[in-house]
Amino acid sequence: MSTIYVAGIGPGSYEQMTIEAAEALKSCDVIIGYTVYVDLVKEHFPGKEFLTTPMKKEVQRCRMAFEEAEKGKSVAMICSGDAGVYGMAGLMYEVGQDYPQVQVKVLPGVTAATAGAAVLGAPLIHDFCLISLSDLLTPWEKIEARLLHAAEADFAICLYNPSSKKRKDYLNRACGLLLRYQSEDTVCAVVRNIGREGEQNQIMTLKELQNTQVDMFTTVFIGNSQTKKLGDYMVTPRGYKDV
Amino acid sequence: MSTIYVAGIGPGSYEQMTIEAAEALKSCDVIIGYTVYVDLVKEHFPGKEFLTTPMKKEVQRCRMAFEEAEKGKSVAMICSGDAGVYGMAGLMYEVGQDYPQVQVKVLPGVTAATAGAAVLGAPLIHDFCLISLSDLLTPWEKIEARLLHAAEADFAICLYNPSSKKRKDYLNRACGLLLRYQSEDTVCAVVRNIGREGEQNQIMTLKELQNTQVDMFTTVFIGNSQTKKLGDYMVTPRGYKDV
Repeated sequence: MSTIYVAGIGPGSYEQMTIEAAEALKSCDVIIGYTVYVDLVKEHFPGKEFLTTPMKKEVQRCRMAFEEAEKGKSVAMICSGDAGVYGMAGLMYEVGQDYPQVQVKVLPGVTAATAGAAVLGAPLIHDFCLISLSDLLTPWEKIEARLLHAAEADFAICLYNPSSKKRKDYLNRACGLLLRYQSEDTVCAVVRNIGREGEQNQIMTLKELQNTQVDMFTTVFIGNSQTKKLGDYMVTPRGYKDV
Repeated sequence: MSTIYVAGIGPGSYEQMTIEAAEALKSCDVIIGYTVYVDLVKEHFPGKEFLTTPMKKEVQRCRMAFEEAEKGKSVAMICSGDAGVYGMAGLMYEVGQDYPQVQVKVLPGVTAATAGAAVLGAPLIHDFCLISLSDLLTPWEKIEARLLHAAEADFAICLYNPSSKKRKDYLNRACGLLLRYQSEDTVCAVVRNIGREGEQNQIMTLKELQNTQVDMFTTVFIGNSQTKKLGDYMVTPRGYKDV
């Protein structure tokens, strides 16, 4: 039985990949992924066959991986961050139902939430939620309910896909919902191009975040009621009792 | 200005560490951590000075790191998983206020949520929450509110610290709360010793989870309403619309 490795390559730089993922990519014949991620790792894996499909062709990309594996090639499917967090791992198992003779193994990676948190200090040190603002596959009402519950329960929150060309006002709308339960002064931050060239970050209040324009390369962090700014860092304490 | 690296070593095996974290440990003079984690990595970093403190001596461990750095040594503080997720990153910035001449830099790692998810398939592929059941630093009422809000908003949930000697019934209580909003048949799983010797996992229903005894080396996964069992794997779809 052949195995396809579904490997998270981390936020972008080769160094933030796990040793295990790098070894898997070194040992395989074919590396398959979304064009942008393949370009990020290409130079580190010379001599490999690289196959890409554009965005929104995810099912096709999965089938491509299984078909290469069926030809007897060893295959790695790559995702940015962690393959199991808004990545391809789930779809690979779903499509894999049609290819019972091929095994799928996920190799975890560093996702944007924790890579971005490391840039900022320690915003996600205690209970937190990940919420994607993309309503491509999720009704906006569901996203809205999650934002409200997360804010009411005082979770720190990390937002993925905070914006796109068609959704320029989604972050603004999300902040409006959070402000029903969270203070205007809640410590927030944006990190752009995590682990890649041009990495930038900015710490601000929730009120300021509401009027900030971000792009699809940005991850957004919203503190809980205890989160503070310590010098240039955003830090959430480990708990709510005095230590 | 000297820098202390606060490095997440991943769930346990050397191979699940990032290349960046391994390089930092190779290049430093002193590696500091909780005894168990130092023992996990020791053999891979020969010739280093290792300093440890037991559990509940976290502030002391941080001060030890800053004091070594002040002596001119290069220091790495290690945490299991990701240093920014229930790890030492936050406390290092807080204690670091007393050592302004030492810089703290967090190197992210693979946390138990995503490492355990990779073992199980893809349970956390969409929006999810991390909740610790430890009430050592957080009042139980706050944990309870978070569980209820997470269940009502249909998040997938990953539970850290689901049990300890003093808290044997906490997972049972947590499941009781989740069952107010989630079906008894919700797909759940436990993973023990992620990435370490004796790794085990078991997929079950929420009803079964309620009566399952786990220990402190276990991470618990609760699916959302869409999560399914596909063969031996636990998979959450990417969204709620038909694709």
